[in-house]
Amino acid sequence: MKPLGQHLLVDLFECDAKAISSLQVVKTSMLEAARRASATIVNTVFHEFNPFGVSGIVVIAESHLAIHTWPERRYAAVDIFTCGDVLEPKVAADYLAEVFGAGRVSQARLERGVLGPRVEEMPDRLPS
Amino acid sequence: MKPLGQHLLVDLFECDAKAISSLQVVKTSMLEAARRASATIVNTVFHEFNPFGVSGIVVIAESHLAIHTWPERRYAAVDIFTCGDVLEPKVAADYLAEVFGAGRVSQARLERGVLGPRVEEMPDRLPS
Repeated sequence: MKPLGQHLLVDLFECDAKAISSLQVVKTSMLEAARRASATIVNTVFHEFNPFGVSGIVVIAESHLAIHTWPERRYAAVDIFTCGDVLEPKVAADYLAEVFGAGRVSQARLERGVLGPRVEEMPDRLPS
Repeated sequence: MKPLGQHLLVDLFECDAKAISSLQVVKTSMLEAARRASATIVNTVFHEFNPFGVSGIVVIAESHLAIHTWPERRYAAVDIFTCGDVLEPKVAADYLAEVFGAGRVSQARLERGVLGPRVEEMPDRLPS
């Protein structure tokens, strides 16, 4: 049974604290990661926290990329949620690990929306 | 070792197709879910797909809530990523399951950012 979504959970440890504390660096890197994954960017929201830390979301036509950084811990949590067969979430994850200089990386891939056989057919209208 | 973030992955099956196909219903419900979890809302991005399907993110001071809906499959994937001890992500998840009329719900709680002892202290400045 094919899942509707693929969810890559990426934990980046021992990052470059300066890189992940900069809203501009984080935003630019997330947009580039989305592009490298072949995603279609729909919208973005980024927010810088006081005294440090950045949260950011890239909404893509194929779901989203999210990041939360703890520069004081040199840690960043990244989620890459995609649907369809075309995207390459691992390419995005590897790029972010590299650009943030992560010393240690954990990646876990989850399947989202594994449906039962009775809703397997893709209808062309909404069920009532 | 205390994790930096809590990540609740919520899969809502057998939802009310009309509810999860409406951008307005999904957005209103996500904002209310964030409030019920005691989150501080920072920003939102919602997007409606053609022919149907809604993606939405609520950026909160404590991380984010995300949703992607497949009305034609009566399925919605929800992520509630929080940090700190105050928030109640399960309250948000239960509320969304109810408001979308989910017939079946799967919840999984993951810890994000479990750091080793050497970075356990919270410094008041960034590491160089």
